[in-house]
Amino acid sequence: KICPSPYSPIFPIALSISRLSAAKLLKAQGLSPVVLEARDRVGGRTFTVRNKETKWVDLGGAYIGPTQNRILRLAREYNIKTYKVNEQENLVHYVNVSSYPFKGSFPPMWNPIVLLDFNNLWRTMDEMGKEIPREAPWRAPHAEEWDKMTMQELFEKICWTSTVRRFATLFVNVNVTSEPHEVSALWFLWYVKQCGGTMRIFSTTNGGQERKFVGGSSQISECMANELGDRVKLQSPVYRINQTGDMVVVETLDKQTYMAKYVIVATPPGMNLKMHFNPELPPLRNQLIARVPMGSVIKCMVYYRDNFWRKKGYCGSMVIEEEGAPIGLTLDDTKPDGTVPFKPNSFLSAFRLRRICEIYSRVLGSEEALHPVHYEEKNWCEEEYSGGCYTAYFPPGILTQYGRVLREPVGRLYFAGTETATEWSGYMEGAVQAGERAAREIMCAMGKIPQSQIWQSEPPCLEVPALPFVTTFWERNLPSVGGLLKFMGFSTFLSVATAAGLVAYKKGLLPRS
Amino acid sequence: KICPSPYSPIFPIALSISRLSAAKLLKAQGLSPVVLEARDRVGGRTFTVRNKETKWVDLGGAYIGPTQNRILRLAREYNIKTYKVNEQENLVHYVNVSSYPFKGSFPPMWNPIVLLDFNNLWRTMDEMGKEIPREAPWRAPHAEEWDKMTMQELFEKICWTSTVRRFATLFVNVNVTSEPHEVSALWFLWYVKQCGGTMRIFSTTNGGQERKFVGGSSQISECMANELGDRVKLQSPVYRINQTGDMVVVETLDKQTYMAKYVIVATPPGMNLKMHFNPELPPLRNQLIARVPMGSVIKCMVYYRDNFWRKKGYCGSMVIEEEGAPIGLTLDDTKPDGTVPFKPNSFLSAFRLRRICEIYSRVLGSEEALHPVHYEEKNWCEEEYSGGCYTAYFPPGILTQYGRVLREPVGRLYFAGTETATEWSGYMEGAVQAGERAAREIMCAMGKIPQSQIWQSEPPCLEVPALPFVTTFWERNLPSVGGLLKFMGFSTFLSVATAAGLVAYKKGLLPRS
Repeated sequence: KICPSPYSPIFPIALSISRLSAAKLLKAQGLSPVVLEARDRVGGRTFTVRNKETKWVDLGGAYIGPTQNRILRLAREYNIKTYKVNEQENLVHYVNVSSYPFKGSFPPMWNPIVLLDFNNLWRTMDEMGKEIPREAPWRAPHAEEWDKMTMQELFEKICWTSTVRRFATLFVNVNVTSEPHEVSALWFLWYVKQCGGTMRIFSTTNGGQERKFVGGSSQISECMANELGDRVKLQSPVYRINQTGDMVVVETLDKQTYMAKYVIVATPPGMNLKMHFNPELPPLRNQLIARVPMGSVIKCMVYYRDNFWRKKGYCGSMVIEEEGAPIGLTLDDTKPDGTVPFKPNSFLSAFRLRRICEIYSRVLGSEEALHPVHYEEKNWCEEEYSGGCYTAYFPPGILTQYGRVLREPVGRLYFAGTETATEWSGYMEGAVQAGERAAREIMCAMGKIPQSQIWQSEPPCLEVPALPFVTTFWERNLPSVGGLLKFMGFSTFLSVATAAGLVAYKKGLLPRS
Repeated sequence: KICPSPYSPIFPIALSISRLSAAKLLKAQGLSPVVLEARDRVGGRTFTVRNKETKWVDLGGAYIGPTQNRILRLAREYNIKTYKVNEQENLVHYVNVSSYPFKGSFPPMWNPIVLLDFNNLWRTMDEMGKEIPREAPWRAPHAEEWDKMTMQELFEKICWTSTVRRFATLFVNVNVTSEPHEVSALWFLWYVKQCGGTMRIFSTTNGGQERKFVGGSSQISECMANELGDRVKLQSPVYRINQTGDMVVVETLDKQTYMAKYVIVATPPGMNLKMHFNPELPPLRNQLIARVPMGSVIKCMVYYRDNFWRKKGYCGSMVIEEEGAPIGLTLDDTKPDGTVPFKPNSFLSAFRLRRICEIYSRVLGSEEALHPVHYEEKNWCEEEYSGGCYTAYFPPGILTQYGRVLREPVGRLYFAGTETATEWSGYMEGAVQAGERAAREIMCAMGKIPQSQIWQSEPPCLEVPALPFVTTFWERNLPSVGGLLKFMGFSTFLSVATAAGLVAYKKGLLPRS
């Protein structure tokens, strides 16, 4: 039975960045946190694999970009460098069995009706997002109405063309690893908004996918864990939390018992179910944690002898729209020093790899895509201690009914995890924000800081500047397809009325004054 | 460390009827099952409270009716009698701040347009249900399309009048304790179908609410537990299941370890998350269990000095439609011998009770409703080991993607619980069907019965006969509102065309042959 000095253990399962950054902050304040980690590694939903074929590869959370200033601050502190994901050459949009090279955040649309529709989609989503408070989406003026709708219903209302509806589906798939008919419209609009809008969340350059860490994203957790030393306990899944006594008592599967004054539960909300609570959780939290599943994703990395796509003028970014395609979005993962792996690997015959290579070959118009030299994948759906990836999603009706207890403390339990963040929730950045906020909640409970200091903004990272996304006059003012039709209807009416007036006038039916 | 003779322990949490009936069957076959029960009582989502004020009261699952032959068979075996819920006098439908007495399953509608719409709603739901296989709803011809829709979306398509849409919402609320915008249309249509249709599920007489057990529903579990003796272990929540060795090893919070050749996990699917598995569950099951939350309900019982409503010509059944009403459906709970409680109780000032009494007083037009003598309630939302009541619901998109693994064994783990049933899933009946089916799966795995005997139908209970619901010619053939409008449009077109033809004929514009 271990009894660390009586302060805040922090808990298993989530993006381990959240619990580690909470512990880091508490330790810096002179407290003695213990981190209980379910897995045999730190990193949680980040997972850097090192081997001789790849040197290193991120099979979980990997990308960072401008406005993600907290995670960038940690990286700077540990001297972990970032590099830009290659976007020099053309991106490709593959749709209707053809490849369309393009530059910029979104593929251009050439059909004028589709163009209006496409422009209106992003504009509408961003405008709806503006109505949603990032710290309390349930207080949006239309919260109830939007929460009762799935994104599929909203797309059916906004989009006039099937081209745009299909792309909108891909946009949901790629950003939250779930389907438009599964997620609440209110939740998804909030999610996009708190990442900075449709352009910021989807873009590589100047967006959420701008950069990766040299050496892999798990280094952040590893460096924090190093700093915390033997305060981090691996392979210690928590199965029981008892706060009926003076101290909170926490039991782990490896038969250890920990006692603390405060506990931060830094897991995806649903993972709270892995623990047996005494006393039971309050009714609203008990309902919430069974209602917010994790997205479903398999991350796949295909290695080639060289980055042949660049010779063909492609940067490697592929936005693939095809019924039943095995993959939606692909980015170049060539190392910053330009090296590519050499050793062929024996698992190349995997069914999934073959299907991916086949579609790459069609998209890039290249036979070379059929001959990978190495393959890595990670199926996050099978992970007991994540439940899925990237993040929890809210089905219709849940955010307005249960959202407000997402980070509401329960006795001496405080809640972190990227799902409880209000900026870049679902990302590494959100994990840091949440972990540090929960740590400061405990500081506040201990009387060490005032309540007003719990939430803190982060100064911008100078090396990774955030450029504003400037919309053009046309993007702001082009009508939607519906608007255009209405306008055309009105013009037709005007023309007809004018013509009728003219005829009437000519026929002498109107008084000539 | 206990090691029972190496056969099927059965597991904590669910409608304990499922695990107990599995154990009962296995014991009858000469095996040595152990039942691990999370709570300090058996019964699970049935919960009979005994005290001097009420004698007994069911604060959980309580009602049984015709076609629920398995639970009726168990009751007969243990000599537990049923009695009919009072429906002698008029039911009341309270809507738009007025009470409308009625007889029958559904309140009548007087506005002819509303009547057509109401008739069409039930007919459409039952017809859609006919397309859905009860044992595999994901194989319905329109499975994908219906699963992507919420019931709210479906109601928006079917219903033309707000009156009917509101009643349809109440129908979902009452049957599955969730909201139309929360549940998949495919799932809800399946749920109603596997209970025998809209009439069977909603009716008191000849339906799911026809009867209650004299003495309370927990007696079923208690009698089975008596029969099983010390094979039933109370206060034994399972937190760990390891099937990496020859035997499955199961650990409980009270620090006991059980070993068995086979294990039945008889809990709501989501409660699987309370356990840590080694090896991890397969990806699809891991995803499923985080996607099927339990409904939310607080069961309230208000006691009066006498059943004054009967004197006013009301049987006590109230269908209450009012924005924000604290209660939707009420049934008379007078004891079969007519006794009513006498002793006043000191907790009468509870806020919820006051609100309920106020609406009863308006609905029944009676001042007496404001003076209860006793009150009982049970908030199922706070129960850690149920997660809610009555049953798990499927949000949009889940049934088609993950439904097929609902009762698919994982190694030596078999799955029971009322959620895995194909007849009256969500009810006590479904719990028995599921428990016995899982027990026979193990018998089959042991080579004691052939696969063809796993699923067994149940002979009808003669004392509780099921009458068919006969639809009238008009119910079958009246048009929907949409159909009527189309027909009227067509008739108008015909009349206009005829009139125009007549004019043309008279004007000599048509050739007279």
